[in-house]
Amino acid sequence: MTANQRWIPASAASSTALLTDMYELTMLQAALHAGVAERACVFELFGRTLPASRRFGVVAGVGRLLDAIERFTFTDAQIDYLHATGIVDDDTIDYLRSYRFSGTIRGYAEGECYFSGSPLLTVEGPFAEACILETLALSIYNYDCAVAAAASRMTIAAHGRPCVEFGARRAHERAAVSAARAAVVGGFVGTSDLEAGMRYGIPAVGTSAHSFTLLHDTEEEAFASQVASLGPGTTILVDTYDIERGVARAVAAARAGGGELGAVRLDSGDLVAEAFKVRAQLDALGATTTKITVTSDLDEYAIAALGAAPVDSYGVGTKLVTGSGRPTAALVYKLVERADSTGEMQEVAKFSTGGKSTVGGRKWAGRVLDAAGSATEELVISARSEAAGLAALERAGARPLQVDLVRDGVIVEEHRGPEALKAAAERHQVARAELPYDGWRLSEGDPAIPTRHVDIDDRQPLRG
Amino acid sequence: MTANQRWIPASAASSTALLTDMYELTMLQAALHAGVAERACVFELFGRTLPASRRFGVVAGVGRLLDAIERFTFTDAQIDYLHATGIVDDDTIDYLRSYRFSGTIRGYAEGECYFSGSPLLTVEGPFAEACILETLALSIYNYDCAVAAAASRMTIAAHGRPCVEFGARRAHERAAVSAARAAVVGGFVGTSDLEAGMRYGIPAVGTSAHSFTLLHDTEEEAFASQVASLGPGTTILVDTYDIERGVARAVAAARAGGGELGAVRLDSGDLVAEAFKVRAQLDALGATTTKITVTSDLDEYAIAALGAAPVDSYGVGTKLVTGSGRPTAALVYKLVERADSTGEMQEVAKFSTGGKSTVGGRKWAGRVLDAAGSATEELVISARSEAAGLAALERAGARPLQVDLVRDGVIVEEHRGPEALKAAAERHQVARAELPYDGWRLSEGDPAIPTRHVDIDDRQPLRG
Repeated sequence: MTANQRWIPASAASSTALLTDMYELTMLQAALHAGVAERACVFELFGRTLPASRRFGVVAGVGRLLDAIERFTFTDAQIDYLHATGIVDDDTIDYLRSYRFSGTIRGYAEGECYFSGSPLLTVEGPFAEACILETLALSIYNYDCAVAAAASRMTIAAHGRPCVEFGARRAHERAAVSAARAAVVGGFVGTSDLEAGMRYGIPAVGTSAHSFTLLHDTEEEAFASQVASLGPGTTILVDTYDIERGVARAVAAARAGGGELGAVRLDSGDLVAEAFKVRAQLDALGATTTKITVTSDLDEYAIAALGAAPVDSYGVGTKLVTGSGRPTAALVYKLVERADSTGEMQEVAKFSTGGKSTVGGRKWAGRVLDAAGSATEELVISARSEAAGLAALERAGARPLQVDLVRDGVIVEEHRGPEALKAAAERHQVARAELPYDGWRLSEGDPAIPTRHVDIDDRQPLRG
Repeated sequence: MTANQRWIPASAASSTALLTDMYELTMLQAALHAGVAERACVFELFGRTLPASRRFGVVAGVGRLLDAIERFTFTDAQIDYLHATGIVDDDTIDYLRSYRFSGTIRGYAEGECYFSGSPLLTVEGPFAEACILETLALSIYNYDCAVAAAASRMTIAAHGRPCVEFGARRAHERAAVSAARAAVVGGFVGTSDLEAGMRYGIPAVGTSAHSFTLLHDTEEEAFASQVASLGPGTTILVDTYDIERGVARAVAAARAGGGELGAVRLDSGDLVAEAFKVRAQLDALGATTTKITVTSDLDEYAIAALGAAPVDSYGVGTKLVTGSGRPTAALVYKLVERADSTGEMQEVAKFSTGGKSTVGGRKWAGRVLDAAGSATEELVISARSEAAGLAALERAGARPLQVDLVRDGVIVEEHRGPEALKAAAERHQVARAELPYDGWRLSEGDPAIPTRHVDIDDRQPLRG
């Protein structure tokens, strides 16, 4: 370390507190002023519908949200900014200085499937504490769920062939790290993004670029250089000049290096046709163990189209990290209950005729399966108490979907970290396998299962 | 500070060095091993075409890239990760420990328009130094340019009415901060994202949410509470229960608070019809200075459709931060020249018949305008020397488009920071105004001006 190196607290280095819409803080100020900031509240995070014609959603971002809540504390620099700009008043700044979420969050476990109206998160706490998490929670879930859903569709299309994430260059540099993680939830097995590898323990993978071949005086020299350094098991990019010549040179380079070539990568042209030609050439050369990996603007449809081709793995970029046409999951965060002046919890809902109406009251969700283990419906119960909600799910034979993520401000550790990510990927495989056949179709259509809402709550929301 | 608080170096807190595809580092290793890592190279960052049927591109992310290059140094923890996983060998790790980009980068200034083949960045340096910036440079440019292009289309559609960025919740939480910045390049005047406000000096703006109204026992109490704390000039959300009643209550609350209401926000329903009704109601109430701001899934087409409605400003979310249907700018980073073993620079290019071919050799770009100041073409000159390139542009009467961004490893400060962002926004207004009328149309179509490539370089690229 050099003498002039600056040091800052780890928490400040990565505070998430200003990843927040300004109105959260001005609402907090007004609520503090009016004496209602401490009213007990219940917010729910859900999607009114699945993104256009998707058949299922995939819960992702849970572990990231827990990390982000831990780092949701205001640093001195942030407080100074809020003060200098006059965005909020001194009372609000005093409140924010000691902000810590002390409430309880339940939600769907990472990797679960979800449907219209599924309560992915239920955030309980004083208005002041729960309100200002809105933007952060939505940002994380909207992006991560969008990517995980795209990933799941791609791994369905890949029918067991490994898919790896190569999209960093086509997404915001920090979003790319989260995309790699969400892709794992959806069934991907590796990433090219080193930050994601380091942070989340995802296996890092890579091949080489055209620039590496072009750096050398000849393609032969480039391949020899790659094999000399990375071994014959490396993956060589063979389409810089002429694919057939490239394949022959790659196999020869590996053999000169003492082994059979690991794989060739195809990154342009008609991948189906090229895969057949290259496989035949490899086999004719005796390189029967050499694999073929393909990249180049793949999406779930292109992967499906490659299903009959002799391809061994898929590297997916742009379409994965941009949610394959659905770059956001369109989830919302809404107040559904709050205490009145006597402390009694009241249902609340938006009623305006223009749309965006919400359903008041806290909800309990479960998945109903038939005798064969196939999901038949998403059951969402409005109930006044946990006991009543869970009892109603049990009567319907539904598997409860909500778990504790934060208890009285304490993060439930099993839902974050590398092991939680592995568990999420496994959970998704199980949840996806429960869906009826139609749910696996790539075409646009209705949700795989309908959502049924049952109201056993005797309260009615206020009508303004 | 508490005793157990962790402290880390500021540089480590925000190192960008692992926002990198693994293959950059394994290519580096192979190049080091083969003795070609120090070959002088020229990489160019460009788009083969504009994203589907866009009429112009907008350069954004320049200041962010310069910040990111400054922070592109490997921390001990990152080095430990690379070592422990065996991703690269010890020689490569030794190289990375002292990595600093020492080369030169020229490029289009932030805010400029660009077209097919425009060389947005020209990165000169040893292969080892320039190669490993590929992923980071592409991530930043691909996202920021996509958002800036969407923003520019929206501000064109808004015809001078202010547009503000409200999309944080629909994008990855860190991407959202960059989106707010890119939106400013495209003509937006504020953001709800506080991190963007603090980091980039963008005016922070906000209204209030349905949850704030629902927190209170009645809508009247909610509005009174907002006015009491934020003043009558605040913006009140009027569509929680019934818009007409909400408008009357909002105006009354402001007047009870001692002034005329600043604005009402409409967030649902048929915004065109509601805007006319609400304007008439406000005027009938004498609240002629009270403005109307609209939100709710706006894009450039919805904004255009609201052009005849009595709306004063637009809050844009989802479609802005996701690039309005084009979430990535599809830019690529390609090696175009490199030294041979004698040190002479050689043109290089990808030739494979399957597509994705590149044009070898360094390029100089300029914009040709007609006598009326209207742009007529993007002129891209392949030339062996800067003098030859600039002379060719001058002969054609073209305005040169490339400026120095990094000189011998030293960042040119005028291209980053809050003042640079303001300059970029102004530059974009000028560059956009130069486009012919067709360039401003929202419909899909050809680029506003064609790109003409002229090769005055006597070299030919190697053919593998």
